[in-house]
Amino acid sequence: MDINEQLLADCHMLGSLERASVLLHRNASVGWLILVVDTAAIDWHQLDDDEHARVAAQVRALSRFVANEFEADKLNVATLGNQVAQMHIHIIARHRNDPCWPRPVWGNLDQSSDYSATMIATLRDRLVGELGLETAGLA
Amino acid sequence: MDINEQLLADCHMLGSLERASVLLHRNASVGWLILVVDTAAIDWHQLDDDEHARVAAQVRALSRFVANEFEADKLNVATLGNQVAQMHIHIIARHRNDPCWPRPVWGNLDQSSDYSATMIATLRDRLVGELGLETAGLA
Repeated sequence: MDINEQLLADCHMLGSLERASVLLHRNASVGWLILVVDTAAIDWHQLDDDEHARVAAQVRALSRFVANEFEADKLNVATLGNQVAQMHIHIIARHRNDPCWPRPVWGNLDQSSDYSATMIATLRDRLVGELGLETAGLA
Repeated sequence: MDINEQLLADCHMLGSLERASVLLHRNASVGWLILVVDTAAIDWHQLDDDEHARVAAQVRALSRFVANEFEADKLNVATLGNQVAQMHIHIIARHRNDPCWPRPVWGNLDQSSDYSATMIATLRDRLVGELGLETAGLA
């Protein structure tokens, strides 16, 4: 699937689930995955029944993963799409001591840190093991 | 169900769906419903299978309603809960000419306008007709 350039610029590609891609936001100051759905629909409620059920299950599984992996105090799960129309769902681990708590991350995340290649590989491996993430074709 | 005081202060109560309440954010500069879920869970993925399916269906139905009723260019659907822990899901109609487009509404909505009592009653009636909203006990 083609992924919007802004999303690709902001994120590391982790791999694919069924008709969806899983991205990791480059800013490691919060644990932040983005599920990009392979659909021409703009809003989630426009998906047909099967698509809706599949995406809901993927978001649920990724939410569990993010909550555990980043030991989140709270998850933020959101589909906004005001800037990038391609359907994507943010799944964000929040902590009471993170850089912009309790504000939302969008537009408020002034601190930035990077993931090491090892950290990205570890996250990818765990997603392969726990969610069946496919990584064919990735470097 | 008991609803958090901050949510009640920010919103008009519209009525109830199964184990959930539907609120209308008082700021009429965007069309903004909030589904408050009757659960002790904090994050959506912590709901059991039946609860998760019920809430997903309610969010989907409310999303369709909000998209149609407010003729949205885009929906924002989000569960954040950084400030109010009680589980609630925002369903927001966005327009390209609304006061804070393309930024998220939270913390960025500087304009405010009020709904008339007639507008609130009309929204409530349509939710009763389209989603089976229950309004027993409401003024």
